[in-house]
Amino acid sequence: MSDYQTSPQHRVRQVARRAHYDRETVHAILDEGLVAHVGFMAAGGPVSLPMFYVRDGESVLVHGSRTSRFMKTLAAGAPLCLTVTLIDGLVLARSAFHHSMNFRSVMAHGSATPVPVEEKPRALDLFTERVEAGRSRVARAANAIELKATEILRLPLIEVAAKVRQGGPNDDAEDMDLPVWAGVVPVSQVPGVPVEWPAGKVEA
Amino acid sequence: MSDYQTSPQHRVRQVARRAHYDRETVHAILDEGLVAHVGFMAAGGPVSLPMFYVRDGESVLVHGSRTSRFMKTLAAGAPLCLTVTLIDGLVLARSAFHHSMNFRSVMAHGSATPVPVEEKPRALDLFTERVEAGRSRVARAANAIELKATEILRLPLIEVAAKVRQGGPNDDAEDMDLPVWAGVVPVSQVPGVPVEWPAGKVEA
Repeated sequence: MSDYQTSPQHRVRQVARRAHYDRETVHAILDEGLVAHVGFMAAGGPVSLPMFYVRDGESVLVHGSRTSRFMKTLAAGAPLCLTVTLIDGLVLARSAFHHSMNFRSVMAHGSATPVPVEEKPRALDLFTERVEAGRSRVARAANAIELKATEILRLPLIEVAAKVRQGGPNDDAEDMDLPVWAGVVPVSQVPGVPVEWPAGKVEA
Repeated sequence: MSDYQTSPQHRVRQVARRAHYDRETVHAILDEGLVAHVGFMAAGGPVSLPMFYVRDGESVLVHGSRTSRFMKTLAAGAPLCLTVTLIDGLVLARSAFHHSMNFRSVMAHGSATPVPVEEKPRALDLFTERVEAGRSRVARAANAIELKATEILRLPLIEVAAKVRQGGPNDDAEDMDLPVWAGVVPVSQVPGVPVEWPAGKVEA
């Protein structure tokens, strides 16, 4: 299935059988990840910037301080590459060469545009909901000063590719009888027990 | 402490109190992460590429297929930004604005150089050891063809900055009495139960 009409230059070339261009795969990865790494050219050279993000239909939103040099660069429409990577496992092969990693990733290319001020409250709610479902109805909503201080950028999902590796090691036929354990050590990102924070006690 | 003499353009500006430039902090983050996102300019624009990596003293090694377009660009000395991000928790504040994330990240700028062929076996062992300690003595070592097919790149740790956020939400004084649960939901990446893979059964 190929919902996204990703142009040739942004399609997966390396191990192309792992590529996916359907909405279901792309959305599932974006909805599970918490941090995107946004690549772009800054004044001092290329940057790969970790950013909290949230998917909003067929776009991805990122946010940050309006005064940040990087946010200014991105808000001005700098070409960017937004990548989300989920690690699912370490793949232990019989040969060193075939050791690998199971992963699911999405790479989206394009330019972001600032979310207009009238759409900011809804967009901020999406971020708050991503932290905890229902949370936007509980936490004190952003006031005018906070809304103004926050830049929210929207990247449309147009030039998109997912890449997925799963399963075991691709050992060579002649290595299959080596007396070496081969398999997968699953890796996952899990939440722990919530820790309440007393009033007045801020960032450590 | 400031072991790394990171130049002004690559020092942390946004929330600079979270910046660290000492070896201990930088090494600990690099030694815990599994994937780096490498930002650089490719022919089709900026790329943020997820890559398995390993620290080797005061440098970071990445590897990939020698025929990959991205590896060729990086091997040619393209300026790059290598970022490793560990997520430690979701920070739930009383106000939407102060929701945040606890994280530890390292950003290293520079250019990588190919590891010479005579150093490749040792370098590959470091990758295998990163998957599982002791593994390089067990798995079949790379042969001449595999060594040739693998490009290994070394990025020296010179222009380096770590950024760390920990602790609870930075709520405003006037929000402290709001009847809203505030605290941290820890997040961690954990290994699961290893799954043995039968001979002959390759990548799903």
